[in-house]
Order: sequence, then C-alpha cells, then structure tokens
Amino acid sequence: MEEMQPGSTRRSFLRNVGATGGAGVMFATMGALGLAPDAAAAARHEPDFTAPRTGDFTLRGKAAAKVVVIGGGIAGLASAYELGKAGYDCTVLEARERTGGRNFTVRGGDTTVDLNGHRQTARFSKGQYMNAGPGRIAQWMITLDYCRELGVPIEVFTNTNASAYLYNEQAGMKTPTRYRTAKADVYGYVSELLAKATDRGALDKELTADDRERLQSFLKSFGDLGADRAYTGSERRGYLTDPGAAGTPGEELGSPAAVSEVFASHVGRYFSFEFGYDQAMLMFQPVGGMDRIPAALTRAIGERRIRTGAAVTDLRNTAHGVTVTYTQGGRRHRVDADYCVAALPPNILAKTSHNLGPAVQSALEACKPSSAGKIGLEYRTRWWETEHRIYGGITETDMDLDHIWYPSHGYHDDRGLLIGYYNTGAHADSYAALTPKEREARAVAQGVKIHGESYREHLSSSFSHHWRQTPYLEASWHSLAGGPDAPAFAPLNEPAGHVYFAGDWLSYLDAWQHGAFSSARKVVGSLHRRVLNA
Amino acid sequence: MEEMQPGSTRRSFLRNVGATGGAGVMFATMGALGLAPDAAAAARHEPDFTAPRTGDFTLRGKAAAKVVVIGGGIAGLASAYELGKAGYDCTVLEARERTGGRNFTVRGGDTTVDLNGHRQTARFSKGQYMNAGPGRIAQWMITLDYCRELGVPIEVFTNTNASAYLYNEQAGMKTPTRYRTAKADVYGYVSELLAKATDRGALDKELTADDRERLQSFLKSFGDLGADRAYTGSERRGYLTDPGAAGTPGEELGSPAAVSEVFASHVGRYFSFEFGYDQAMLMFQPVGGMDRIPAALTRAIGERRIRTGAAVTDLRNTAHGVTVTYTQGGRRHRVDADYCVAALPPNILAKTSHNLGPAVQSALEACKPSSAGKIGLEYRTRWWETEHRIYGGITETDMDLDHIWYPSHGYHDDRGLLIGYYNTGAHADSYAALTPKEREARAVAQGVKIHGESYREHLSSSFSHHWRQTPYLEASWHSLAGGPDAPAFAPLNEPAGHVYFAGDWLSYLDAWQHGAFSSARKVVGSLHRRVLNA
Repeated sequence: MEEMQPGSTRRSFLRNVGATGGAGVMFATMGALGLAPDAAAAARHEPDFTAPRTGDFTLRGKAAAKVVVIGGGIAGLASAYELGKAGYDCTVLEARERTGGRNFTVRGGDTTVDLNGHRQTARFSKGQYMNAGPGRIAQWMITLDYCRELGVPIEVFTNTNASAYLYNEQAGMKTPTRYRTAKADVYGYVSELLAKATDRGALDKELTADDRERLQSFLKSFGDLGADRAYTGSERRGYLTDPGAAGTPGEELGSPAAVSEVFASHVGRYFSFEFGYDQAMLMFQPVGGMDRIPAALTRAIGERRIRTGAAVTDLRNTAHGVTVTYTQGGRRHRVDADYCVAALPPNILAKTSHNLGPAVQSALEACKPSSAGKIGLEYRTRWWETEHRIYGGITETDMDLDHIWYPSHGYHDDRGLLIGYYNTGAHADSYAALTPKEREARAVAQGVKIHGESYREHLSSSFSHHWRQTPYLEASWHSLAGGPDAPAFAPLNEPAGHVYFAGDWLSYLDAWQHGAFSSARKVVGSLHRRVLNA
Repeated sequence: MEEMQPGSTRRSFLRNVGATGGAGVMFATMGALGLAPDAAAAARHEPDFTAPRTGDFTLRGKAAAKVVVIGGGIAGLASAYELGKAGYDCTVLEARERTGGRNFTVRGGDTTVDLNGHRQTARFSKGQYMNAGPGRIAQWMITLDYCRELGVPIEVFTNTNASAYLYNEQAGMKTPTRYRTAKADVYGYVSELLAKATDRGALDKELTADDRERLQSFLKSFGDLGADRAYTGSERRGYLTDPGAAGTPGEELGSPAAVSEVFASHVGRYFSFEFGYDQAMLMFQPVGGMDRIPAALTRAIGERRIRTGAAVTDLRNTAHGVTVTYTQGGRRHRVDADYCVAALPPNILAKTSHNLGPAVQSALEACKPSSAGKIGLEYRTRWWETEHRIYGGITETDMDLDHIWYPSHGYHDDRGLLIGYYNTGAHADSYAALTPKEREARAVAQGVKIHGESYREHLSSSFSHHWRQTPYLEASWHSLAGGPDAPAFAPLNEPAGHVYFAGDWLSYLDAWQHGAFSSARKVVGSLHRRVLNA
C-alpha cells in the first residue's frame, strides 16, 4: 500500500538507509540526524494504509461502487468493512452458517458436520470455549489495530511458560521435564562448553582478550556456572519443595543429567520457537474468544449486508462488472456488482465454476491445502493449576498430539478447557480419520503420560475440529511454493477483470489473521484507487 | 510446618529419595514405582500446611486464645486470617492508616507524607493505579493460593517482553535495542562460536561424536545459523517494515553488529533474569491492583478486629501473656492477650520499647533495611502501544532508573500508567533525596532517551514512593546476613515468651508476599500447636 499513501519523507528516508546500509548504518544515521529513538519506533511498523473515506467520493463528485465479497472470513469481512467506510455498497456471501471462516470459536451448543460425516455438538459449559482456528496475536500484527478500532478487549495469550512441560517419548524420556528445568540444563551445558573452549584458546581467532572476558562473564550468568566454569545444576531447574519460611530453605530438584543425556533428550529443539518474530511473547487474544473479532466486523458491516449459508456456484466477469450465482436455502440467487473480492480459499474457488481463465485456475490449483486439527478438553477442575502449578502456556511433545495448550483465561475458576492436541500434517490427518470419540480416547491416553490420571478422571467433555475436513474450507492454510510473489501466483495478485483476490494465503503471514487483514487492505486500496481514477 | 501435618507417605518417601540421590535417581524410582508423573506434580509444592479449624478446639474441649497481631501487612493479616479460622480472638494493630504494609496500591486521591516531609497526593485518573510495593506473583507461590481462596481474580503480569527495550547508556549504546534483537544477536554469536569450537575439536574430551552432532543441530536452531554455521542475522531480530500482503515481504532490521560490539554492549546481562525460579514467566497480578489481596484479607478477618493508625509504643511479655501499648488518635491504649504475633518490620521493632531481651534486640538490629523506590507516570495516551508496539513488559537500563515497567492491564485504553523507575540501593536513595517534582523531571529526561518525546509530551501526572523514607516501614526489605536460619537470627525464629515473629524477612523469599505468607503459616502452626497442647 506504500504507493497509495506515501510514507512521511523521514520514514522513507530511513527505510532506504536501512535497506542499503544495514541496521548499524541506519542507527548511526538516525543518531546523527537526531531522529532516534522516535524514528526507530515509527519505522518499525506495517506498511502505510489509509482506509477509504466518504470524502474521497464527495470531494470528487464520484459515487462509490457496488462490491460483492465472496467469503465471510477475516479477509472478506475486512474488505467489506474498509470499503464500507467510504460508502461502498457491499454484499458478503458466506457459504457456512457463521462468519469468521477459520476464525471459529466453539461454545456449548455449537454443531458441526465434517466431510467424513462426523456430527458433533459441543457440550461445553457456559463461559468455556475453544478457539478451533487462530488463537494468538503478536504485538506488531495489525490484528491488534482492528481489536483497538473495533473495541474488542484483549488479554495475554500465554504462548510460553517456564512451568509447562516438555516430553519427548520417542527420545526415551520416562517423565516430562519442565521448560525451566530443560532450559537451565541446556543453557548451563552450552555455557560450560563454550567457556571451556574459549579457555582452551579455540576461539582466539574470533575473539580479542576483551571479548573473551565479556563472553566469560556473560556465560557465567547465562548458564549459572560455578567458579570452575562447570554447570552442576541451578535453582533455575526448580524445586521439589519450594522455599518458604525460616527452617524451609526448599529442596532443589537435584543434579542435572549428564550432558550426553540432556542433548539426547532433544528438549532443546523447542527453545527457538519463542524467538520467532511471529511467536515471541508477549502475545494476545481477545477476551471471550477469538471470534469476537469477526463478530465485531460483522456488526460494523451490518448484518443485512451479509448472507450466510450462501454457497457460490458461479463467478463471472461481465463487460462492466461481475455476476455471482449462489444457492441459499436450496434456492438459486444472483448478485450483480461492479467488482468482486474473492476472499474464499483458493482450493474452493478452484472447484467453483468461473470464467477467470486458465492462468487464474492454474494459480489457484497451485495453492496446496494443509491439515491441522485441535481437540478441546473441558475439565471439571483446573487440576493443572492446583496439582501442577501450571497457569497457561504450552506443553510440547514429540507425540502425535504435538502441542497441549493450557487456557490463558479463567485462572482459578472451577472449570477449564485445554487444547488436548494442536497438530498438523500427518498427525492431524491420522486424528481426522478417527471418530470424535476415538480422538478423545487417544488424546487423553497420551496426555495421561505427561499429567497423570487427573487428565482422564476430571474430563467433562470434548470437541474436535479438523480443517481439511471442514466443508467450504477444506484447509487449515495453504502452501504456495516460492511464496505469494512467485510467478506462479502472479495472476492472483492482480485483478482478473473486475475480480480481486484476498486472503492470508496471498500474504507473507499465511495462517495468521494479520495476513488476511494485510491482503484485504491491499485489495481495498487497489480497488478504491481504480474506482477513484475511473 | 511439616511436623504439624505429616505429608503423605508417598510424598515424604519421594522427598527423601530426591534429597539423597538427586533428581535423576528420583525420577527413575518414580518410574519404577509407577508413581510418575502424578507424584512429580504433588512433590513439587510448598510444605504442607493445614489451617487451624474450629473443630481443633471443640473436639478437644479447649478454648481458642486471644492474640494481638502487631502490623497489618501481609504477614500480620495472614496470621490473623488463619488463626481466625479456628476462632482465635485476634486484634490487629496497624500503625499506618491502611492495611497491607508494603503491599500498597496508589490511586487518585491517595496522599502520603514521607520522612523527609514530602507530601504527595496522587492525581491519577479513575481506573489507573500503581503498585508501589510488590507487583508480581510466580505460579508456584502460595500468594496465588490465597488469591484463589479469597476470590481475588488474577491476570498475567508481563515480566518479560521481546518487544521491550534494552538500553545501556554507559556501555555506549546510542539507541535502545529490543529484547528480541539483542537475544537474536547474542544467541546467534554464542551458537556460532560454540559450533566452530566444536568443529575444531576443542570439546572432543567432553563430547562424543553423537553428542557433537546433536549439539550442532541444536545450535543451528538456537542461533538461526547459516549453512556454514555463521550467524549473519535473522528475522528474529525484527523488521523495519513488517511483512504483510503479497508484494510486501517486509524489510528485516538488517545485519547485526560485530561480535565484539554485541558483547561490549552488555545487553546479555539481562537475559538470565527470566530464568530465575522467582521471576520466570508466566507471572501474575491481581486484577485492579495488588492491594486486592490485603483488602480481601481485611474483609475476611473483619474490620472490627483491625485498628489502623495504631502505633505500638511498648510490647511486654507478662507471666501469662502479653501486654501491648499503642497510641491511636493521640491517645494511649493497651491490649492484653495470651499471645502476640510481632509482624512489624524488624528495624521498627528494634526502635520500640520491649522486654524481649538483648538477644532478640541484637537479632532485630542485625536485620539491615534496604532501599527501593518507584515512580508512577500516568499518560494521556498509550503511546508505547501505538508508537512502539510494546504491550506490557519491562525495559532494562544501566541508568539510575534501573527498570521501566509497561502496564500489564488496560491494553488499548485511552490512558495508561508506566512505572518510570523501579530502582534499589544507591539509585533509589538518590531519587529519594529529590523532591517529587525533581524525581519526575529526572525520570522523564531519561525515559525520553529511550522512547522519544512522547515520554514527556503525553505525561499527565506522576507519583513517587520510596520505602526507606516511609513512616513505620523504613525499608523496602531487609538483608539478613547468612539467611534467616543463620545463628544470629535464631532468637527470632522461636517465640520469645508469648511473642512470635513473622514477616517476609524471616523467610527465604524476603521481599515477596510468598515469604510473608510462609512465615505467617509457620507462626500460626507453631502457636496453634502450643495452644492445643497447653
């Protein structure tokens, strides 16, 4: 959107410096210009976007256009929402019975039927919910800007927790270890090894005497090393009995396993997750469920503009616009509009009749759908808090349940809901092939290995959801070889006649709402510019 | 308290195994016994405590005793609360006008006068507050058990944030760096150096060929190393322009500084903070202010049992009990009771007339008071969220403001309140010597260096609090050389006649509410056993 709304001169200048000379040069330049740190803050943000405004038309004596949006997921809703700000006459066609697309929060009473014919009705208690799709938002993502703008309250999503477990069954671990313990041991041994190698002169080529001294000082603190630069354990590992009053110094967990065992357990493979630009804490979620976002968008657009249960059967460019045919309630309907935003999944559009041409069709078919699934396990007690002292966070495993999420809300309530698996690829496919009851049994049996019998005994009900098997979506996200700007996808990154394509899959943050919002903004800007210049 | 309420046989057994053989042996034993992981969870908890119950007396035909508690901080309130469960007739004497002690939440309208005569009235807006004392709770701390029991809702305290800044002015940093950037660089270079040293055979004594392979695999992921095992930057550092829609891959921050510069900046000194058993995320705070805890305790005890503005002037063991003299509203009062829990700071009790003997007096005088201070800065906008994309967390500096805390609540509100400094020792003393206005000016001038002019321009009002200068407390916490079980403090860890001593200073978690609660539980258990056996 940079071409639409030029960035401030200052900002563009900094971008250019940053791009050419690297951050070091940029910071030096900023300092010299006296712009830091304000400019540093400003520069670190999403591309500029200015929403269309009513004034864009009234000031130019033009009229807003009529737009039909196919797909009521985040990209479709965001398109209609932003276009609506300037008075575009938008109609959203959503094939499912609710808006939000993959942003789907399951509550008690919700019913689904998957493509295998499995019918489930959630029996969750009042106040309990499961975000079957997206569950977290990074601080920099524009999803948060929409939460602010739409008045959707947010709270911390607990993406990392030192008290959560790591459990690599295939690596031979007999019991889970806590994140804090695994980190203490791995960071301790890494520090010891590097300290020793440095002492032995192995890095004299890379490091000056000053460097080595600073490095040793860092490693001592980072690894909690002893005076002889050895790692022999640390209070960071945790305690068997917590320290308390005088007379109760606490009993530390004890000595770590040998360095060979620690690396053979492969606990360290999970550590870099939290360094990712998209996954680093702090992260956030809407209070009350992720679908507060599509619900707020739906209200802002106006329910009368949104038709649910409306499955598109044909999409056609005409001489001056588009014609969309859909079925709703068993009857065939038709919408004519000036433009269309096709914000449905590419794998679904590829199966829909259209006249967008073979290049578009090939590009759509090149977007490969992926698998992911989740199971929500509601419990009558919050035993993970009382028995394990785990308040939120994620337990990582090498089992086919992949990840277990503890809830990021409702602390100390009577009941609570875990995500018993959040798995992808073959793991998700294998669970999807089971009945919901079998999925629950398998997930619980594995969770028991980590948490003990409370994992089974306190279970109240479960609900599982798999995206590859979900009608009208049939994908958790999409794989675009080479990225969204690869030549194969060029036909989707420009309008096909009067049809624009939008979705997280056409972004660098596929599977994130940020990607869907970004893509919608791009299409909205492009369409609006075209209408203004028409 | 273990002697009071024997742990389950299983649990004691595990403790013994754990203590003798280290955790490795213990886990192996647990596996062999089929107890893991349930037992692992149970074993990892605070020492047993069972609150006194009315039935303890009625079943034995005994009567509860009368207890006077000096000090209405957490230790005093917890003592009265727990004793009250069994029907003890407790009276709490609190010298200040409010209960909570150092657990002090400042809101608009609150007024303080410090020992230097500085009078301040907070002008914070409705809903804004500042926790002048404790601000965070770790998951394992029994403080959370009291939150659950008393119905005090909790939320995440944001102790670590990848988007917060590090700024070492004395190390020559010209601009702040984000935690995520500093971590990427330090972890990257540490990984590169260790990978190279390992390749060069420097660690062949410590590592087998398998170990080396696993280590290299870990380092590649941990440091985001390239194919040649070099660290040349990473998307983990952050972006100048965030990735978005197709056409906007994002602009990464650029190349890192050289290894020498990264270590010379000393950013790594802050990393181990988050590994601490007491500081590792996730951490929590009560919704609405930390003083929700003393407020709930006060309600549970009954306000009629608590006398505020009641400064003790004399504490005396008598033949069959205690006599406490205090002034309230300018008049002298006296309380006779069977027992006393002295839960006031040791430095204050040391200045109070008593007949507890020279050994107690020496021990009290050996508890050395420490300094700490905080300033709350209320802003008219949440510019740290909108301009810097920082939602909570702590910025670390080597300046005399030490730490800056961004608020852990009220995200996206119109206004918000930062802790502009949380400093200790000489840094706190130097700010305490200033007027409140001067403190604000100095804190803001330093904050501007990190955040730019918004730090000054959007400021609404401030309030500063220093514990060494606070009447009736005169300490942020206390230093007990050798720990609370050192011989010098033995007279305080047993009753002096009918007087028991309680406080965080008599625990292994001084300065934490967990320590105060633990100490209170110990004293309550000991006193109750004595009464039952009398």
